[in-house]
Amino acid sequence: MAIISPSRRLRRTPFSDAVEAAGVGGYTVYNHMLLPTFFESPEADYHHLKRHVQVWDVACERQVELRGPDAARLMQTLTPRDLRGMLPGQCFYVPVVDETGGMLNDPVAVKVAEDRFWISIADSDLLLWVKGIALAYRMEVLVDEPDISPLAVQGPKSDDLMARVFGEDVRNLRFFRYSVFDFEGTDIIIARSGYSKQGGFEIYVPGFDLGRPIWDALFKAGEDLNVRAGCPSAAERIEGGLLSYGNDMTRDNTPHECGLGRFCNTETAIGCIGRDALLRVAKDGPIRQIRAIEIKERVPACDRAWPIMAKGKQIGQVTSAAWSPDFDCTVAIGMVLMTHWDPGTVLHIETPEGPFEGTVREAFWA
Amino acid sequence: MAIISPSRRLRRTPFSDAVEAAGVGGYTVYNHMLLPTFFESPEADYHHLKRHVQVWDVACERQVELRGPDAARLMQTLTPRDLRGMLPGQCFYVPVVDETGGMLNDPVAVKVAEDRFWISIADSDLLLWVKGIALAYRMEVLVDEPDISPLAVQGPKSDDLMARVFGEDVRNLRFFRYSVFDFEGTDIIIARSGYSKQGGFEIYVPGFDLGRPIWDALFKAGEDLNVRAGCPSAAERIEGGLLSYGNDMTRDNTPHECGLGRFCNTETAIGCIGRDALLRVAKDGPIRQIRAIEIKERVPACDRAWPIMAKGKQIGQVTSAAWSPDFDCTVAIGMVLMTHWDPGTVLHIETPEGPFEGTVREAFWA
Repeated sequence: MAIISPSRRLRRTPFSDAVEAAGVGGYTVYNHMLLPTFFESPEADYHHLKRHVQVWDVACERQVELRGPDAARLMQTLTPRDLRGMLPGQCFYVPVVDETGGMLNDPVAVKVAEDRFWISIADSDLLLWVKGIALAYRMEVLVDEPDISPLAVQGPKSDDLMARVFGEDVRNLRFFRYSVFDFEGTDIIIARSGYSKQGGFEIYVPGFDLGRPIWDALFKAGEDLNVRAGCPSAAERIEGGLLSYGNDMTRDNTPHECGLGRFCNTETAIGCIGRDALLRVAKDGPIRQIRAIEIKERVPACDRAWPIMAKGKQIGQVTSAAWSPDFDCTVAIGMVLMTHWDPGTVLHIETPEGPFEGTVREAFWA
Repeated sequence: MAIISPSRRLRRTPFSDAVEAAGVGGYTVYNHMLLPTFFESPEADYHHLKRHVQVWDVACERQVELRGPDAARLMQTLTPRDLRGMLPGQCFYVPVVDETGGMLNDPVAVKVAEDRFWISIADSDLLLWVKGIALAYRMEVLVDEPDISPLAVQGPKSDDLMARVFGEDVRNLRFFRYSVFDFEGTDIIIARSGYSKQGGFEIYVPGFDLGRPIWDALFKAGEDLNVRAGCPSAAERIEGGLLSYGNDMTRDNTPHECGLGRFCNTETAIGCIGRDALLRVAKDGPIRQIRAIEIKERVPACDRAWPIMAKGKQIGQVTSAAWSPDFDCTVAIGMVLMTHWDPGTVLHIETPEGPFEGTVREAFWA
């Protein structure tokens, strides 16, 4: 196993010291920033996430802030999702596409005020796209990366832990809504959201210096809840059908191929980039689409797209795979041609360690 | 030391299998792609680079291709360097800045034809910036990431090795010029360039499948030259004053702060983004600038910016540092305020493992 070599370019987060003290075992790089990949072991972390509560350093979900008179117009320019009904206090999952309908990012937009949005991004420099568009369209809007570092609290005991630190009101937050809470005199935006299906919150920590005090407060309050440092679990997120930009989709894919057609109100999202291409796509539907794929055996680490073959031709690819202890199989995500995407279809998957058989499922596992 | 966790998102290159067979010890991530950081050890690799010849997987220098009637106009829009005299066959180092003059990337532009450029990028998704600008300005140009993977041959024996594989004519290439050479029937662009001061070439390998044959041909031809797999050496590139985007400069910095003012012909580069801001900067010059800094002792890995302090105030930061076996000191790069940037000034540098003293040098080491 190769180590990851440190440099300033792989940015540390407000929580990196704490993450290292907690014994992080692996890292990936996400938005030029360190993202932990496991602590005890992927399997031990997985079981703990499903039973207790974890604190995740997801500062790598960098924010792109839009602020000014044209902020709302710019936000609608960026996505085919119709944002007219969006109110402050809401978070919207918004596909962002280029002029051909290719996915550039699949972020969560947070409407902070009528003239202010945060876009909580997946792994691409969406800032450069948004800045380029705003500049060339001469929009009256400031576009920047503010010093905000999301910290996630995930797992079935999340409500209990959060209530102890931020007050009982946090329990009343609805899914994908946020509200402002106090931490030692500072207003903090907290949303009920996160990259797992175990329930939880994302704390938008404002300012590097507040990172460690909030981390420490959560660990102090959660001792008897068995709180631990954690991170997104590959197996758990695949079970739940949570896609990963760069893994399960790239600029080659339309939202419809990714199963995100329901987030495209292309008819009414007037002014959005990619509208012409997506109206065309919406007419016929995609010819390939994301599917949940079950493999009986353990497979190697999915470090590249694995071709899915039929009669000597490639009809798809597997892009994420992990062993699921709870379902006692490998859970996988792939993009499959319509000729082979029906549930029950047996797929022939080629990996560097040989071929495996997979089966298309009706739905994700959890 | 944490391991790097594999996923499709951290893209493998045409050379990754060969790199792993050669015993890569560490990786970083660059443009969402794997970049080796050492093989035998950073010091052993450094000595070998300066004496023999190495083959580097720098496929992570992704290309942004501009193609079409507006390609040249778009290229000039992107950079304050005056490109009117640029001819096919030339490579230009071009600062790319935003509307405030902040560095977005410091790539090498390759003029492939009058209506076609490749931008060989440093570590940011410049593709998104260029696509956004081209789209919003309604330029007649295709912008894409072609399937081209640079492979560098670096070290004093580079000419000998390259001549054996691509013919004697390769010796006649001048610095930052390219020409087209044949490899088993395929035309390949080769430039005299690379991220070291030891001399060498960059081969723009067209197509994933050609990667391994070229790699293997170089190793077969170079056995008696002691050819080895290598990668950019932190110590060697700091000695030579080669900057690293994301380490030594970010969007916060102007080209002038980075010592790249000589690449800004802002008066005549009409139409370039950031012109107003850079004309202002050029009037007074920068108040802080990149400096070579010598430290007597070995220092920890520079995984974050280290503050440089004077009388309780921060007057700069160190952003890269590595032990130099040849100069028997730590060679470092920092951004220093004009009050402290004169050669010989002693700097107080704060690292996580305590303070160190550094001295501003007149110039880089090599």
